[in-house]
Amino acid sequence: MIPTIKWEGSHILMIDQRKLPAKVSWYRCRTYRDVIGAIKKMVIRGAPAIGIAAAMGLSLGASSIRAGNFVSFKKRFDNIAGEMLLARPTAVNLRWAVDRMRAVLETSAKSPVIAIKEALRNESESILTEDIEINHRIGINGAAIIPDEAAILTHCNAGSLATGGYGTALGVIRAGHEMGKKIKVFADETRPWLQGLRLTAFELIEEGIPVTVIVDSAAGSLMRRKMIDIVITGADRIASNGDTANKIGTYSLAVLARENNVPFYVAAPLSTIDMSVKDGDRIPVEERGSDEICIIRGRHLGPRDVPACNPAFDITPARYLSGIITEKGVILPPFKGTIKKAFSSQQA
Amino acid sequence: MIPTIKWEGSHILMIDQRKLPAKVSWYRCRTYRDVIGAIKKMVIRGAPAIGIAAAMGLSLGASSIRAGNFVSFKKRFDNIAGEMLLARPTAVNLRWAVDRMRAVLETSAKSPVIAIKEALRNESESILTEDIEINHRIGINGAAIIPDEAAILTHCNAGSLATGGYGTALGVIRAGHEMGKKIKVFADETRPWLQGLRLTAFELIEEGIPVTVIVDSAAGSLMRRKMIDIVITGADRIASNGDTANKIGTYSLAVLARENNVPFYVAAPLSTIDMSVKDGDRIPVEERGSDEICIIRGRHLGPRDVPACNPAFDITPARYLSGIITEKGVILPPFKGTIKKAFSSQQA
Repeated sequence: MIPTIKWEGSHILMIDQRKLPAKVSWYRCRTYRDVIGAIKKMVIRGAPAIGIAAAMGLSLGASSIRAGNFVSFKKRFDNIAGEMLLARPTAVNLRWAVDRMRAVLETSAKSPVIAIKEALRNESESILTEDIEINHRIGINGAAIIPDEAAILTHCNAGSLATGGYGTALGVIRAGHEMGKKIKVFADETRPWLQGLRLTAFELIEEGIPVTVIVDSAAGSLMRRKMIDIVITGADRIASNGDTANKIGTYSLAVLARENNVPFYVAAPLSTIDMSVKDGDRIPVEERGSDEICIIRGRHLGPRDVPACNPAFDITPARYLSGIITEKGVILPPFKGTIKKAFSSQQA
Repeated sequence: MIPTIKWEGSHILMIDQRKLPAKVSWYRCRTYRDVIGAIKKMVIRGAPAIGIAAAMGLSLGASSIRAGNFVSFKKRFDNIAGEMLLARPTAVNLRWAVDRMRAVLETSAKSPVIAIKEALRNESESILTEDIEINHRIGINGAAIIPDEAAILTHCNAGSLATGGYGTALGVIRAGHEMGKKIKVFADETRPWLQGLRLTAFELIEEGIPVTVIVDSAAGSLMRRKMIDIVITGADRIASNGDTANKIGTYSLAVLARENNVPFYVAAPLSTIDMSVKDGDRIPVEERGSDEICIIRGRHLGPRDVPACNPAFDITPARYLSGIITEKGVILPPFKGTIKKAFSSQQA
């Protein structure tokens, strides 16, 4: 499996996901601003991967700070963190990662600057390593609920490329496959960026898991025709009541799954749950430009001046979710109580 | 408005809809087989337009028959009609048009061959002219149910280009606009062929009706956010119980509309209703090739060997429909009785 993101000396390298699978090329970040640009331009995407990139980007930014004392170091660091937080608004993992890096900084107040820089770099590496471990646990927890023979529908890419490795929704699929379950996957192509056709199909073919691509609007019809046993997607932010922000189209899948009695699960690390947000309508949904929809492979395919409305995410109310697959187990409804419990069992 | 299809001497010219809106070019059919090819390759598409093309194609085929008597003329004509019927399976308008042409042939049994050919040509012209008239009536009937200020969601292209002119779903929108209603349209881009982005947006911009394109998977979220007042689509075939075959994705829209209390209407001529088919599960749904999804502007965007499942249509059960807008008025549920009544009032 290609690593999504890695250190190379003092630089950060990311697989350029805009070019996959046609071209495997590395996007080199020399400064934290390169990292912010990469997140904005979707060189790297996927909530956990964005969190990891932000942590590594903060470490990169911190490494270039010239400061004689903690106070001035911290001031500069906070500015970088502030910029980083603006890269993309919806995935909460970005803020979560920034908070973890900040906490390391706070506990290093008495260390020399060089030691702080090292602690930050170590923390970014821990976040990456832990994410992969967490995904394996999500995989094992989720695989338990997959039937021994299952047609699984997934949306966008919640795979290795959306995380440090292994994936959330695709981690569940991988783990089920590794356990010997007979799994076949239907992958929504996922307009406008085609993460399903380009990334999910690519990962699953590499893994030897049967995959068939469909246009996003075919998913409902396949459910009605009883061709889908279970739907599993990732998440970009989950409110404390279970309402879930994820790639545009997820809400529709959830409604269609409910209508057709197909279980609908979200797979995500606890770091995707934002306990500070009461419900989904308080999650900021990023609106991206018209060109992502209207310009395909460099050419306007519609009328040149037609506007597009391009929300990158939507909100799925918690009532449509059969469960949230996390590293702590599968959180079941009613979510208000169970989500809180998952966090407290983590602290225990 | 550009005509969708027309006679030019003994040839048939069609706007090549695969190239719109970037290029307005005419596709010339010299033989009936050219017409069949054009329908298969989607040079022309849309249920009513396919019916018109089939009728004109039959006339073209008939014009080249060399036969000394009615029996041998009819035998050759029946072969051509049989080939024509296989061009595309879902839209019933094709069969309806072939049946009308056959009926003309039957009543011409005593005429000389040259007169039969003329009668067939006249019938094909009548079918075209009537279709435009019918669309105007559909427009007026449908406009009556559109609020004075409305955001209308439509899918695929049920416009002038899908018909002889004016359109069914877009005919309703046009008529509402002409009556002075404040209409804005959200057009699903409609993968894989992008009829929404390429054709619907093109027609509406020409008409001066505000249009915004969205990816297909965003429609549900927009409904949830109360941005859509009414959904109107066309139809490729309606069973006698009201179950409706239309462009893939229509079923999902209907379910999402129901879930969000948004009225969902189908606009179609009575010729789209197939009284010989009891319910939607008996309507043949065309499955098209993987390449339509995976190859975009000449290049495989996913892994080269990934299969796709590409049903061109889906079935929306009648229970999701608020009504069927026809030239005879808006047919309301329960459809079993009301559809039959619409036909009998036609014969009266």
